[in-house]
Amino acid sequence: MKIWEKKKNFSFNKKIVSFTSSQDSKIDLLLAPHDVIGTIAHVIMLKSVGLLNQKDFKIIIQELRNIYIHEILNNNFKIDEGIEDIHSQIEFLLTNRLGEVGKKIHSGRSRNDQILVDLKLFVRTEIKEIVYMTYSFFDLLLKLSEQHKNILIPGYTHYQIAMPSSFGLWFAAYAESLIDDLLLIRTAYRIVNKNPLGSAAGYGSSFPLNRKMTTDLLGFENLNYNVVYAQMGRGKMERIVSESIASLARTLSKMSQDICLYLSQNFNFISFPDHLTTGSSIMPHKKNPDVFEMIRAKCNRITSLPNEISLISSNLCSGYHRDFQIIKERFIPLFDEIKKCLSMFQYMLNYIIVKKDIIQDDKYKYLFSVEVVKKLVVEKGYSFREAYQKVDLDIQNKCFKPFTKGYYSHEGSIGNLCNTKIRNLMQDVIKEFDFDKINEVIKRLIYHPLY
Amino acid sequence: MKIWEKKKNFSFNKKIVSFTSSQDSKIDLLLAPHDVIGTIAHVIMLKSVGLLNQKDFKIIIQELRNIYIHEILNNNFKIDEGIEDIHSQIEFLLTNRLGEVGKKIHSGRSRNDQILVDLKLFVRTEIKEIVYMTYSFFDLLLKLSEQHKNILIPGYTHYQIAMPSSFGLWFAAYAESLIDDLLLIRTAYRIVNKNPLGSAAGYGSSFPLNRKMTTDLLGFENLNYNVVYAQMGRGKMERIVSESIASLARTLSKMSQDICLYLSQNFNFISFPDHLTTGSSIMPHKKNPDVFEMIRAKCNRITSLPNEISLISSNLCSGYHRDFQIIKERFIPLFDEIKKCLSMFQYMLNYIIVKKDIIQDDKYKYLFSVEVVKKLVVEKGYSFREAYQKVDLDIQNKCFKPFTKGYYSHEGSIGNLCNTKIRNLMQDVIKEFDFDKINEVIKRLIYHPLY
Amino acid sequence: MKIWEKKKNFSFNKKIVSFTSSQDSKIDLLLAPHDVIGTIAHVIMLKSVGLLNQKDFKIIIQELRNIYIHEILNNNFKIDEGIEDIHSQIEFLLTNRLGEVGKKIHSGRSRNDQILVDLKLFVRTEIKEIVYMTYSFFDLLLKLSEQHKNILIPGYTHYQIAMPSSFGLWFAAYAESLIDDLLLIRTAYRIVNKNPLGSAAGYGSSFPLNRKMTTDLLGFENLNYNVVYAQMGRGKMERIVSESIASLARTLSKMSQDICLYLSQNFNFISFPDHLTTGSSIMPHKKNPDVFEMIRAKCNRITSLPNEISLISSNLCSGYHRDFQIIKERFIPLFDEIKKCLSMFQYMLNYIIVKKDIIQDDKYKYLFSVEVVKKLVVEKGYSFREAYQKVDLDIQNKCFKPFTKGYYSHEGSIGNLCNTKIRNLMQDVIKEFDFDKINEVIKRLIYHPLY
Amino acid sequence: MKIWEKKKNFSFNKKIVSFTSSQDSKIDLLLAPHDVIGTIAHVIMLKSVGLLNQKDFKIIIQELRNIYIHEILNNNFKIDEGIEDIHSQIEFLLTNRLGEVGKKIHSGRSRNDQILVDLKLFVRTEIKEIVYMTYSFFDLLLKLSEQHKNILIPGYTHYQIAMPSSFGLWFAAYAESLIDDLLLIRTAYRIVNKNPLGSAAGYGSSFPLNRKMTTDLLGFENLNYNVVYAQMGRGKMERIVSESIASLARTLSKMSQDICLYLSQNFNFISFPDHLTTGSSIMPHKKNPDVFEMIRAKCNRITSLPNEISLISSNLCSGYHRDFQIIKERFIPLFDEIKKCLSMFQYMLNYIIVKKDIIQDDKYKYLFSVEVVKKLVVEKGYSFREAYQKVDLDIQNKCFKPFTKGYYSHEGSIGNLCNTKIRNLMQDVIKEFDFDKINEVIKRLIYHPLY
Repeated sequence: MKIWEKKKNFSFNKKIVSFTSSQDSKIDLLLAPHDVIGTIAHVIMLKSVGLLNQKDFKIIIQELRNIYIHEILNNNFKIDEGIEDIHSQIEFLLTNRLGEVGKKIHSGRSRNDQILVDLKLFVRTEIKEIVYMTYSFFDLLLKLSEQHKNILIPGYTHYQIAMPSSFGLWFAAYAESLIDDLLLIRTAYRIVNKNPLGSAAGYGSSFPLNRKMTTDLLGFENLNYNVVYAQMGRGKMERIVSESIASLARTLSKMSQDICLYLSQNFNFISFPDHLTTGSSIMPHKKNPDVFEMIRAKCNRITSLPNEISLISSNLCSGYHRDFQIIKERFIPLFDEIKKCLSMFQYMLNYIIVKKDIIQDDKYKYLFSVEVVKKLVVEKGYSFREAYQKVDLDIQNKCFKPFTKGYYSHEGSIGNLCNTKIRNLMQDVIKEFDFDKINEVIKRLIYHPLY
Repeated sequence: MKIWEKKKNFSFNKKIVSFTSSQDSKIDLLLAPHDVIGTIAHVIMLKSVGLLNQKDFKIIIQELRNIYIHEILNNNFKIDEGIEDIHSQIEFLLTNRLGEVGKKIHSGRSRNDQILVDLKLFVRTEIKEIVYMTYSFFDLLLKLSEQHKNILIPGYTHYQIAMPSSFGLWFAAYAESLIDDLLLIRTAYRIVNKNPLGSAAGYGSSFPLNRKMTTDLLGFENLNYNVVYAQMGRGKMERIVSESIASLARTLSKMSQDICLYLSQNFNFISFPDHLTTGSSIMPHKKNPDVFEMIRAKCNRITSLPNEISLISSNLCSGYHRDFQIIKERFIPLFDEIKKCLSMFQYMLNYIIVKKDIIQDDKYKYLFSVEVVKKLVVEKGYSFREAYQKVDLDIQNKCFKPFTKGYYSHEGSIGNLCNTKIRNLMQDVIKEFDFDKINEVIKRLIYHPLY
Repeated sequence: MKIWEKKKNFSFNKKIVSFTSSQDSKIDLLLAPHDVIGTIAHVIMLKSVGLLNQKDFKIIIQELRNIYIHEILNNNFKIDEGIEDIHSQIEFLLTNRLGEVGKKIHSGRSRNDQILVDLKLFVRTEIKEIVYMTYSFFDLLLKLSEQHKNILIPGYTHYQIAMPSSFGLWFAAYAESLIDDLLLIRTAYRIVNKNPLGSAAGYGSSFPLNRKMTTDLLGFENLNYNVVYAQMGRGKMERIVSESIASLARTLSKMSQDICLYLSQNFNFISFPDHLTTGSSIMPHKKNPDVFEMIRAKCNRITSLPNEISLISSNLCSGYHRDFQIIKERFIPLFDEIKKCLSMFQYMLNYIIVKKDIIQDDKYKYLFSVEVVKKLVVEKGYSFREAYQKVDLDIQNKCFKPFTKGYYSHEGSIGNLCNTKIRNLMQDVIKEFDFDKINEVIKRLIYHPLY
Repeated sequence: MKIWEKKKNFSFNKKIVSFTSSQDSKIDLLLAPHDVIGTIAHVIMLKSVGLLNQKDFKIIIQELRNIYIHEILNNNFKIDEGIEDIHSQIEFLLTNRLGEVGKKIHSGRSRNDQILVDLKLFVRTEIKEIVYMTYSFFDLLLKLSEQHKNILIPGYTHYQIAMPSSFGLWFAAYAESLIDDLLLIRTAYRIVNKNPLGSAAGYGSSFPLNRKMTTDLLGFENLNYNVVYAQMGRGKMERIVSESIASLARTLSKMSQDICLYLSQNFNFISFPDHLTTGSSIMPHKKNPDVFEMIRAKCNRITSLPNEISLISSNLCSGYHRDFQIIKERFIPLFDEIKKCLSMFQYMLNYIIVKKDIIQDDKYKYLFSVEVVKKLVVEKGYSFREAYQKVDLDIQNKCFKPFTKGYYSHEGSIGNLCNTKIRNLMQDVIKEFDFDKINEVIKRLIYHPLY
């Protein structure tokens, strides 16, 4: 029976229930701990404003904590057949075990603000993990940059061999890219980290709720004050978060594209051990970069999510529409997908083998001549024409001296990577997050004495 | 003649020049002041590291300032026929007027980092204007919210009449929405506000550039350190900025959708004076909300821009590709488009007429009954069933007392809009920007004595 | 062990296998019957060109038919733990049961053309079902159009009440929309219905394959001749098919939007029985159109798929990339999704209740006056001013005669719906498909004597 | 004064006129000839049903033909300052020159169906040109395929060297791709080629129009019967057409990507004369493929258009909305853009230089060994192991015989390109179009005696 059904013996159409229910109960399960956390905070507040007496309060909190610790944390939790969603399952358990008192938790709340709270608590936790994984990946990139900073590779523009680059430059470029990605994630986090609880169905309620209190209990930075705006956050929040994750995804995707190219025999800049690439039963020379192709494709797919959300929500007037439920189906798995990509990328990079003699190849020789000409002009006072002729002659006489990194000295160039500065920038971004609060909140709501 | 042409009498194919040139010189013209500003900073730095002598320096700076003040600011500036882009036009003018010395400004710079600098300076200025206009729009929304805070309207979910709302709530919801939009624009601004100058073609140069110096001169918050990453910012920067503008656009688009609906005779919540709506030659009753339909459509179109940029840049390896030029063609006009939408929206809202007696209509009567039932339960101690019966009887006896805002008291509800809190949040976001620096930078580079 | 693994005791990295495998084996299961069909055709051809002897041929065919009839059709088929995909599973079964001979089926074939064949056979079957369902839905729409053709509703432009419309017009409009959608699906079908088998990894093979023969055996209309193009069809085929399905989806989505609006109390044009709409526990008047909101959202999501495919495949050079595998994950479930939407929509429309007295409402009165004025001018020879005054007077004297459908007589108007013409157009499109061939092909390959 | 303005001295707001007008009058100018053609057909029909007398008819037709021949064809036509759009301009000219009679042409028509007709006539003409240009491009590709059919190149999968391919295969692959693209354009053409005239504002009119007659006069294949659906075609038509053009664009984009890669010094498969590539002032070796990068980017941008249209029209209810006007702004220039890309691509390919000795390079040697092994097995009866050993020995003894095309014999392979079959398929598609009708229609309406 649905909680909004009017008559006991009303037989709601099963085709419709199945069509409109959350398609994949696994998705809703990921929200379970957050639904309990949100409910505990709501219950504490209800009691504080006199909508729940001490006795009921105690019973409910005990059971909610019970569910959290013994069922959810122990992976004993599931959504029963015929139960519409995670919110209904929690309420169903309470009513089943505690009787009528279980129904009191829904006062002043609607499933509309409840799912918003669940999603926000879920996203907060996921972002925390993604930030830590990104930092670890960043760390590896900088390490590889330092390790290989003296190994030159050709730099390309228009896919044409252009100017000298280096593995130092290449690895660190992607490290620095992650900083801007985390700036976006940081802002998404700020936007997420506001409390919608109390907005009910999108128009608030006449219960004397204390929304400031639930804001503090749940560790939100602030409220979504206006209840109509709180509801408007549905769809908007998911779009903003997925745009920020998509930016990270595009960094991974671009680096994967570079790697696929560099692994091509026509470039042959890098390689991976046999057990990490896939081969061909008939072509012994092939070492297919499947992992990076999968990362590239998965990350490109992530890029399409914000647009999908926009297509769903375009031109809908304000107020809740059931359409928002559909967004959940691809939004929630997004986090697992990006985390897997990050983890796999990092795993692979631990084994990357860089070639050392790349630029000795004849086709790259022009990379350096120009630089040496410049050097003669700038440091030795040659006129451009004299310098050009000297270099030309050196090349002909095979005494042309190869370029060394020392020539490049400005900030961010081959000879002066500024990796420490880059690390500092990254650390500044990380510091802007305040993840400790999340753990504290959970500890307090689940383990601290409340009554 | 192109600056990269090798031979004097080389006749480059005109079809190709026309096909590959910036399609619309009006777009490049918008970059003109920023190209000069960026060039002045570069020239000061070149002198400081000994790549330009005092005499040449003075001549060049004078002419650049001349161009800025007397040509660009006076709208006397244009891109000559056959000149490829804005960068070439400035260099062409210098060389034309000053002779060989004009060619010296390009040392240690490429058109790749030059266009990046131009775009970033341009975006910075545009964001400044958009932020100010958004704040002004925000201000009007809050004013309207306060002014009409006691006028109730039905709140809808699923397009179904659901719960009481108010014009106070509705106007302020969109005001609060603008705060999150500006948070995104703020982050886009931070990402834009890093100096790419010196990254040259994407691999730096062997000139002993002082990138820290140009960073300070141009008022950038920091450097894009890694030169490969600096170049990678092309496409990424435009995507991030357009996502942030698109978020603002979606707020305008959603409010426009509400307005179109509320203007329908089937809702009839608001109206505008005749001279602001378009009519029909045959249907005297029609007052078409064309302005809001155009805002809605233009803003939806803006939403599509980040995806367009992703489609262009997907799966391109690192390093410059000519493809990025194409992004410019729709990215640069974006700012004018959103500013026009903001300006037009604000203009219209000054004239909005809200209806006062909306909820008297019979179809809205159920909005209140439930609330009164709740009230009896919560405040008067009735059991739910008693309360329900009393209200039912009151309705039948036509002595049912209408709901008044007083019933809603929690933060962000009809009776407690928290508009002051919302204003404070907005002001905090505005303060995070540091637009004064932009003006100072221009003043120093254009008007202060440098030699 | 992977079929391309080189060494017996090679331990391929499990993290990678898990990361790169088809995520959801349920998706691959849907391809099982098609993989067997394709393999049977390939095997017949191999024998015909002498690459398989009669004895091996007979054993293999028997086992493949066995798998098809007794395992796949009986739902006894599954993909074993550790088996990479559907192709490997079939080969694994054959080798397991028949020994070395099972390995012979892969001659002249690669998993690249095999998955293309599987997908194309799958899509062909799915399109057949979608076309039939669409026709059935079309039929219902025309029936409803005829049934309610005399019931007028207001027609809107700009959400403003504009001109008289009717349920007859409204239902039939969506019926006619389906014709153009099927034209697109018809073309997608033509493009799908070309044989890629024999293109192997995308460059053909040196085996003397008879591709014309497999084309006939599988009932393809033609070949993808060029093997490089055959492979290029991957990604392109999915995009084209999903665009055509998305067009159908947009018709459903738009009609759902109309229904959600018409169900709003502010329109109140239609209703559905209680057991088909969802209610609210506290708002007795609400009848939420959840089914139509879900259809609207799911169909909008479908619209996003072609763009997702483009983002994945943008700027990839010709030749196979592993990225294409990712497309499968959302492409294959597309068909189930659209079929469910069609089925649910049709189910609901069977119960639609249309209101009869809509246009009596005062706010719609202006709909007719203009038409009556016109009528007097055109048919009775009044001058416009005389006619206008007469109508005005009639309205004042309350003897204004309501508009009847008779006034509208041209093709496609309220009074002349042309539903028979529309039905003829639809039947012409349906005839362009040749679905019988699909069944014949399967019968021949699975049940006819071949040896 | 707007044609729908009610009062003579009504001063409509100029800000609004400017904001809501067609932004770019150049775009509307492209519709001018089509607007006149559509109007002539409408006028002939009005006369035939008695809504226009012979005298007025004659004057109007003369003036419309006058405008067509002497103003539009002679490029003397423009949209006057303050005139809202092309439709108003034509009506304005007529009224200005002929007096009151000019106003009679709008009976039974609205700007809503008028713009639909204009767009459809415009698209028909543009598709005609695109089809001819595509066929010409196809022709060149097949010519190049035949010309270079014996020149081998490596075929890649996963960017890894995989199997032998050839320029013959590569050029023809893109030729065959164009066939499927034209199939989509053919269907878009069918959907466009239905007459919306008479649907007026989307609900038909009470005038006794003969829509069959205008259908014949304008050479449409059929009617959009249902007037509500005719109007629903707005947005839908543009989406479908742009999807079909986008498919063509993706073929060009993909081939451009191949070319950019093949031009890279790391591949070096092809080249172009110096005057067709752009160089670098400092890197003499560079030959940037700017034209192909621009085609790639422009074509990727075209790919984004259908999604943009979907975002604008998502969740709008049936009936006209002003939003559709915005679609025009990017839809109309689409045709010029794709035609320029086609033309430029063809121009460039005329000069393509293919390298002959590519596969001699050491890194490609493994391409052939496997094939030779197979050959020995299939043709000479060696066991696989014997064959493998023989080839291995041949390679060691440097008497390994290179692969020749003869080994590949099946349809669509290197040795059997089937280009004639591909040409036949293409010609079948071209024949499905009936472009002659378009010219006949214009001749009849503009030049034939009508009175």
